[in-house]
Amino acid sequence: MTDMPTALNLPELDPLPPETQKYFDICAEKLGMIPNVLRAYAWNIEQLNGFTALYNTLMLGQSGLSKLEREMIAVVVSSINRCFYCQVAHGAAVRALSGDPVLGERMVMNWRTADLTARQHAMLGFAEKVTKISCEVTEADRKRLRDVGFKDADIWDIANVTGFFNMSNRVASATDMRPNAEYHGQAR
Amino acid sequence: MTDMPTALNLPELDPLPPETQKYFDICAEKLGMIPNVLRAYAWNIEQLNGFTALYNTLMLGQSGLSKLEREMIAVVVSSINRCFYCQVAHGAAVRALSGDPVLGERMVMNWRTADLTARQHAMLGFAEKVTKISCEVTEADRKRLRDVGFKDADIWDIANVTGFFNMSNRVASATDMRPNAEYHGQAR
Amino acid sequence: MTDMPTALNLPELDPLPPETQKYFDICAEKLGMIPNVLRAYAWNIEQLNGFTALYNTLMLGQSGLSKLEREMIAVVVSSINRCFYCQVAHGAAVRALSGDPVLGERMVMNWRTADLTARQHAMLGFAEKVTKISCEVTEADRKRLRDVGFKDADIWDIANVTGFFNMSNRVASATDMRPNAEYHGQAR
Amino acid sequence: MTDMPTALNLPELDPLPPETQKYFDICAEKLGMIPNVLRAYAWNIEQLNGFTALYNTLMLGQSGLSKLEREMIAVVVSSINRCFYCQVAHGAAVRALSGDPVLGERMVMNWRTADLTARQHAMLGFAEKVTKISCEVTEADRKRLRDVGFKDADIWDIANVTGFFNMSNRVASATDMRPNAEYHGQAR
Amino acid sequence: MTDMPTALNLPELDPLPPETQKYFDICAEKLGMIPNVLRAYAWNIEQLNGFTALYNTLMLGQSGLSKLEREMIAVVVSSINRCFYCQVAHGAAVRALSGDPVLGERMVMNWRTADLTARQHAMLGFAEKVTKISCEVTEADRKRLRDVGFKDADIWDIANVTGFFNMSNRVASATDMRPNAEYHGQAR
Amino acid sequence: MTDMPTALNLPELDPLPPETQKYFDICAEKLGMIPNVLRAYAWNIEQLNGFTALYNTLMLGQSGLSKLEREMIAVVVSSINRCFYCQVAHGAAVRALSGDPVLGERMVMNWRTADLTARQHAMLGFAEKVTKISCEVTEADRKRLRDVGFKDADIWDIANVTGFFNMSNRVASATDMRPNAEYHGQAR
Repeated sequence: MTDMPTALNLPELDPLPPETQKYFDICAEKLGMIPNVLRAYAWNIEQLNGFTALYNTLMLGQSGLSKLEREMIAVVVSSINRCFYCQVAHGAAVRALSGDPVLGERMVMNWRTADLTARQHAMLGFAEKVTKISCEVTEADRKRLRDVGFKDADIWDIANVTGFFNMSNRVASATDMRPNAEYHGQAR
Repeated sequence: MTDMPTALNLPELDPLPPETQKYFDICAEKLGMIPNVLRAYAWNIEQLNGFTALYNTLMLGQSGLSKLEREMIAVVVSSINRCFYCQVAHGAAVRALSGDPVLGERMVMNWRTADLTARQHAMLGFAEKVTKISCEVTEADRKRLRDVGFKDADIWDIANVTGFFNMSNRVASATDMRPNAEYHGQAR
Repeated sequence: MTDMPTALNLPELDPLPPETQKYFDICAEKLGMIPNVLRAYAWNIEQLNGFTALYNTLMLGQSGLSKLEREMIAVVVSSINRCFYCQVAHGAAVRALSGDPVLGERMVMNWRTADLTARQHAMLGFAEKVTKISCEVTEADRKRLRDVGFKDADIWDIANVTGFFNMSNRVASATDMRPNAEYHGQAR
Repeated sequence: MTDMPTALNLPELDPLPPETQKYFDICAEKLGMIPNVLRAYAWNIEQLNGFTALYNTLMLGQSGLSKLEREMIAVVVSSINRCFYCQVAHGAAVRALSGDPVLGERMVMNWRTADLTARQHAMLGFAEKVTKISCEVTEADRKRLRDVGFKDADIWDIANVTGFFNMSNRVASATDMRPNAEYHGQAR
Repeated sequence: MTDMPTALNLPELDPLPPETQKYFDICAEKLGMIPNVLRAYAWNIEQLNGFTALYNTLMLGQSGLSKLEREMIAVVVSSINRCFYCQVAHGAAVRALSGDPVLGERMVMNWRTADLTARQHAMLGFAEKVTKISCEVTEADRKRLRDVGFKDADIWDIANVTGFFNMSNRVASATDMRPNAEYHGQAR
Repeated sequence: MTDMPTALNLPELDPLPPETQKYFDICAEKLGMIPNVLRAYAWNIEQLNGFTALYNTLMLGQSGLSKLEREMIAVVVSSINRCFYCQVAHGAAVRALSGDPVLGERMVMNWRTADLTARQHAMLGFAEKVTKISCEVTEADRKRLRDVGFKDADIWDIANVTGFFNMSNRVASATDMRPNAEYHGQAR
């Protein structure tokens, strides 16, 4: 394998538009790397902008879900879909945000083995059903979320984070997207 | 059922920010309606903006895929996931763009019954595999697309359109999103 | 595609036996067409007679199920099996019998999105289970039907209508049976 | 369990119409029993007549398929659907018609372990695909049958026998239909 | 097919070590045959010894489960996995131990049709879940076993017998292991 | 969670028989821990002995498969079955034996993303098929293994290692077996 972020021959724009370059510079500074998913989209700046706008608001924006909760959903969805890129990148995020390396492993390997709160359990059960058989979701499923304290805005956010990784998992697997090597050792 | 675009109690912002209002006005004028998916996101303008930015570039932007091809992928993915909202809305788009009402029905009911070109067949077969078992996609699958003339940028776009509807299908089904009544009779 | 009702080279008997010709004439008069499923069986009159005898008693005979209920089962089963012929022909029947075009769409696309009575919901849930995993049906499933008012004769009829379309869906898909063009625009 | 042929309280007509009684008398004489499937339908003579007309022409009528081949399909389909009634009754038929008790067991337990001709293998492979995922059958599947010598009329018959047991398996399992005890020891 | 116990060319050691020969002689005397699974392992005496040690303690050793119950689990698991060898050999054992030939057939064909005690039903339901989706087993599943009287040691044994046949089914199917002809007619 | 190796209340024998104690002492010395799977079986020494005899010969005995290859199979099978215990313990073994931490991650997350030799690819593809649908394995599958150089003894070993983890995965998941904490950080 080469240094390309995917199996497709789609080199990033050179030079990048100034705003994109600035965004990548911030990533490099804050994260110590530019996540390959960004490099993969960087041949098409409009798509890159749409993707990052949606990602950033869903994963980092205001929400009734904590950042850890959103990352837990990300890993559980990515585990069901067996997306290598996202399990690696977001598994590292769960380890880092929780300070619990084993929790990251459990989300990757089998979320049901984790010692979860009722709220987390309902949230991940909903994410699993939406990932596997969304067409069978009914009001009873949403009620189960409300019963453990989620508000309608939170349900919306759970559905959207779940949906987002069902998108990015497929883009990553369909293009053989390769996670940055840095993730593997983080927060072990 | 009420006039709400989903089963969640998340009314759109009132008033909408001027840019959003302007966008909705354009929709109303061009389409004769504001698609309910936009109304559903309009309680959270950042999410609405991210969603529409990504949607518009993937479905309406520059691409080696025609708009009809992108809509065919949308309906096939939505049929696999049995998303009512997206089958209705994008089934209408396939009927309208192709001028062939039966083609829209075939994409909804069983795409394999359609009389497709080799290019379309490979494209929809790839979209189906990415939807059902993305983790088993390999270089051989991408090669099959190149063999019928797709370029790497096209493969990227097929993966992204497929991914996008795997997201929006799940958001719609998880929230019981309701398609505008206007779609049903269009282009029959 | 040609004018043949299936992908098999099995022309109908010529001339048809007088009773069959009379039956086809009645169809032509009443429906404005001879349904292609009948033309497909017409190379073998004994099979045609057996098929139509069973079809007519199950779908048009005396029953505790209304004709619309039987057609709803037909479409839900055909949607699970993704049979193009039967979704088209019986989707039109649901639209016509109910006077509700959207109900026909819902049966095709995702029956759970429809606004159903408890009786209809139990009936379609049973038809779905019998279609997908009949070997797991138990007394508890039959009890659920009795609890919403179905009699044992009705349960028998639900099982038989469900069974019938699990047969005809497979015959149609295995032979690439083509629905008459007239169905598509009916009762929209 | 009682003497009832199913779990439903639907006693057979008493007295039976003379033609039905005559048919049952012939069964009793030829088979030493009245198969419970006939007793189960005998509360509704029109349905009984339709069912037996179709059954008799498909399983006993003129065909390019031998009676043993049709019974092999019956058991393989019934095994996939795990229908107790049909595996028992038609497993006995395979044992009797073939004079090979182990062949009956193989059709019930795992048809791929049998030492089959290319013709039989193609036939059962097609029946399996039509049973499991009929919506994915294409011209390539029919070609494989033609390549081992099947004519289009034979393909039609394979599809119809396969379809028939996908119906009767579901009727039997949905109603807990009980096979006559006589079958178990036959032709061991 | 030849006299080889599997499709692999792995003849048993010749001569067998004295202890193995003695074990096989006992089998021949007690069972009237040397089960082919033992002959299949006899090219590698260490594996044979490990396999028989584990088999003998699980299936014949002290346990809160009766030998019939353990054989019922064996057949249900083997039926789910469609292992020809194990359904034949252990189906015969269920017939012999229960004195009820039909019970053996029910375990092979569809265990839900059997007239079971609450204890047996819970036991086989657990074995089925462990076979199909072990990763979703939770404390609630174990509780259901305790509720019908199983002790923790019994739950352990159910899990281990279920596990064992999920191993041996796969070894047998992967190597085309052939059951001794003697089993077919036993205890009919 | 407590210090118990599973969710079952089955304390190990106290004192352990001298041979078992000696075996555990060796484990403690060599591995720095007594693997919880051994502690879990230690309430029943006969079962413990059978399990370890089979495990040791399959995983550590003479074979045409390297120890790393056997561990790769172990992790791929455990990933398909989503067994937390075995993914943790054998994932660590793959990392240690290969000196490649990312390879261990790939076996856990999606083996198809690994850069494998033709031999390894065929081996893991066979293990996957035997795990998911062993009843469909045919001579063609074994031939594919021979084509990349595997001997019949190796095919036997692949089948047995695959089978073994299909057993132990189910025992572990059915009893909520907990991996020793030491594994998580090993060989990262």
